[in-house]
Amino acid sequence: MRTNSVMTENIPENVISEALELIKFDEAGLVPAIAQQHDTGENLMLAWMNKESVSETLASGRVCYWSRSRGKLWRKGETSGQVQKLIELRIDCDGDTILLLVDQEGVACHTGRRNCFFRAVRNDGLKSIADVEINPNKLYPK
Amino acid sequence: MRTNSVMTENIPENVISEALELIKFDEAGLVPAIAQQHDTGENLMLAWMNKESVSETLASGRVCYWSRSRGKLWRKGETSGQVQKLIELRIDCDGDTILLLVDQEGVACHTGRRNCFFRAVRNDGLKSIADVEINPNKLYPK
Repeated sequence: MRTNSVMTENIPENVISEALELIKFDEAGLVPAIAQQHDTGENLMLAWMNKESVSETLASGRVCYWSRSRGKLWRKGETSGQVQKLIELRIDCDGDTILLLVDQEGVACHTGRRNCFFRAVRNDGLKSIADVEINPNKLYPK
Repeated sequence: MRTNSVMTENIPENVISEALELIKFDEAGLVPAIAQQHDTGENLMLAWMNKESVSETLASGRVCYWSRSRGKLWRKGETSGQVQKLIELRIDCDGDTILLLVDQEGVACHTGRRNCFFRAVRNDGLKSIADVEINPNKLYPK
């Protein structure tokens, strides 16, 4: 897939401020962010970002979300090792959704599948359409 | 892009119920839905769905969202003519995001661009990376 994207690295502070001004964070201070593998177009996951995670992601070039369940910054891959390198961050027309073009290390899904969208609605019922590639116990050792 | 998908048409009621049970609608009864062009992998937009819009989409094969601003069902293309035909609906691992593989007629964005994600954060500032393909006045005549 042609993404017309340029590798992101150390976006300057004034550009980060410009981006933050365009983004409309919701009442909880969050915005949904889609992570898409930059070269294949595969949608990997959707998660949430706050101002701080957008800033860190743009400054570091490594994707950082806000974990709603844990109530803290979530540097994707910090536990599992399945890091997302940022290729490009895009903002939609209304400023209320972010698209992250990324380079995903290994698998994006906590189930050990490459992406989170593995349940398809078919005429004869719900079907699981992707295999587990890495045992989740290896991603999250106890 | 290989999407491994099968055309959706008239999903039976029992399968629609099965899908609705898997989806975790938020406090407002909504779930975010990503619309992706099924054959190219282009992400077109993100909008919101409630139970009724998911049911209608699966039953009709034409994408119907819930408009948060207008507070009513939004049959994509009802005003603009830019219809989204459903190819496949997928549910993510946590049940809190929907991925719609669609066939988009014309343009998805109300600005007249093919997709909504046309503002890219680059090292030297925010860049508009897509041209208007259809004059918005033609999409929404007064």
